[in-house]
Amino acid sequence: MRVVSFERKDGSSGIGVMSDDTRFIDANRRDAALPDMLRALLARSDGLARLRKACAGQAADLSFADVKLLPLIPDPHALWALALNYKSHIEETGLTTSKDYPQIFLRTAASQVAHLAPLKAPPFEIGSAFDYEGELAVIIGRGGRHIPVDKALDHVAGYSCYNEGSVRNFQEHNRQFGLGKNFEASGSFGPWLMTADEFGRPEDHTVSTRLNGVTRQHAPISDLLFSVEKIIHYLSTGYSLRPGDVIITGTPGALPPQPGDTESVPEKQYGRFKVPGLAHMRAGGTVEVEISGLGVLRNPIVADEPVAYRPGT
Amino acid sequence: MRVVSFERKDGSSGIGVMSDDTRFIDANRRDAALPDMLRALLARSDGLARLRKACAGQAADLSFADVKLLPLIPDPHALWALALNYKSHIEETGLTTSKDYPQIFLRTAASQVAHLAPLKAPPFEIGSAFDYEGELAVIIGRGGRHIPVDKALDHVAGYSCYNEGSVRNFQEHNRQFGLGKNFEASGSFGPWLMTADEFGRPEDHTVSTRLNGVTRQHAPISDLLFSVEKIIHYLSTGYSLRPGDVIITGTPGALPPQPGDTESVPEKQYGRFKVPGLAHMRAGGTVEVEISGLGVLRNPIVADEPVAYRPGT
Repeated sequence: MRVVSFERKDGSSGIGVMSDDTRFIDANRRDAALPDMLRALLARSDGLARLRKACAGQAADLSFADVKLLPLIPDPHALWALALNYKSHIEETGLTTSKDYPQIFLRTAASQVAHLAPLKAPPFEIGSAFDYEGELAVIIGRGGRHIPVDKALDHVAGYSCYNEGSVRNFQEHNRQFGLGKNFEASGSFGPWLMTADEFGRPEDHTVSTRLNGVTRQHAPISDLLFSVEKIIHYLSTGYSLRPGDVIITGTPGALPPQPGDTESVPEKQYGRFKVPGLAHMRAGGTVEVEISGLGVLRNPIVADEPVAYRPGT
Repeated sequence: MRVVSFERKDGSSGIGVMSDDTRFIDANRRDAALPDMLRALLARSDGLARLRKACAGQAADLSFADVKLLPLIPDPHALWALALNYKSHIEETGLTTSKDYPQIFLRTAASQVAHLAPLKAPPFEIGSAFDYEGELAVIIGRGGRHIPVDKALDHVAGYSCYNEGSVRNFQEHNRQFGLGKNFEASGSFGPWLMTADEFGRPEDHTVSTRLNGVTRQHAPISDLLFSVEKIIHYLSTGYSLRPGDVIITGTPGALPPQPGDTESVPEKQYGRFKVPGLAHMRAGGTVEVEISGLGVLRNPIVADEPVAYRPGT
């Protein structure tokens, strides 16, 4: 089963079950007692089963063009992200990381957009290197604390694609990544949650990233240094994982340069580290993250508004 | 005006205005149109003014003993925290940080408890060094992007105390602090928001931390390396600050050892760095963070549950 979060034309939120790659069943119309947000659905022990039952045999009544998709979990209690969890990414950056413990940081919900929504490239004078990071996202179903490695996958509701977009110069301002991993609308999450029973084992899949149609990352998820199970075990040592929590498992290294790569050398710099084959995300482009057997997360890239004082409410 | 977040015996949430240090006016009983959560109140441009009007001249009807206090903002969009923002703390840890850019990380809402609620000390085999960090918390009122330094304080609704409790060995597992700053119920936030007009300039105040009655930290807030204004300016470069967002401004170094300090040398280690005068938070103790002219945030410390698999819902 593939599940989406969306907003109807009237502004109400809903949960959908995909019929094919763009059309879906409005689950809340089929069962009015279902929650209208995915986090709340996952918090019910019978949530996914009830969703499945409500939509079984039903015909699609909406398509992506009819609604505004939402980031898969728009309001998670926590968005945990992994740094340097593929050997190929460690080698290209020249950075070091612990062999014993995963390297973990947090993203805010405000930093993510939905499938098909525009990612915002910062004004060039603020962030010249705005980079994709294609990653497998894990969505927690049943919460828990002190979860043993051999029980960890029992706590996973499903999987999705994540583009963990990063503003490199901010990421390198200091020791903690901080704002560099949290620019407004710099990352994306979707298109859908594929339930764990349908997805199977993460290590049997691959993750790929394409920028303007050119494949820039492609790696087997079995290359993860800390597996999904180990990350869940580690986090639950100190934190009670909650339904709807998201774990973004890390990104692989870039592929070698492609014919036609034209960026000048200074722009190819990955912060202090030159990465051959790495191309930055620029306004006007399109970026896709694909997990094999799951689907494709696609986002246009637009220019963020120019630097001007914008007081909010 | 001093504002608290609380939960009534019937489970409903409310906003209160303090009459003295323990008694307050239930604002929602005075004006039913007021939001019952502080973040929502701050999102209204007239929120604090309307709260003030509703409670003017009213007598207290509840005290801290009658309700469950909530962390001042239980559900912020972002809890930004500063590392190494006092020279004395940099010196005691021996760590380095950028002179040009603040060092920033995030905490989850789950990591914080309210005034008077128990902080949870991890089981000793998980985290032997569970440390207080007394800090000034800034609460954003009006949101905004690209906020100039000279407009930054216009965006502050008020101030409070924060104990940014940290599990040192986890913090040092890898380059990003990750879980070490995010143990469940490891930090506290309160007791109240003092509005900016009443608090005055942050640099005219001091922050102190007492563990079991002994003063362990005491510093002028004017020692901040990156001022409140500079932090707000920096964050708003990439993120639209939102009403109710919290900025925890960093902690000063420990005071010299006190007569009667009995911890053995290994336990005095601050991770890899010995810090004379630093004492860890242990179950059975009490910790207080005081900001001069604002108030005292007090928490008992209890033992977290022992390590055992605790599947959630």
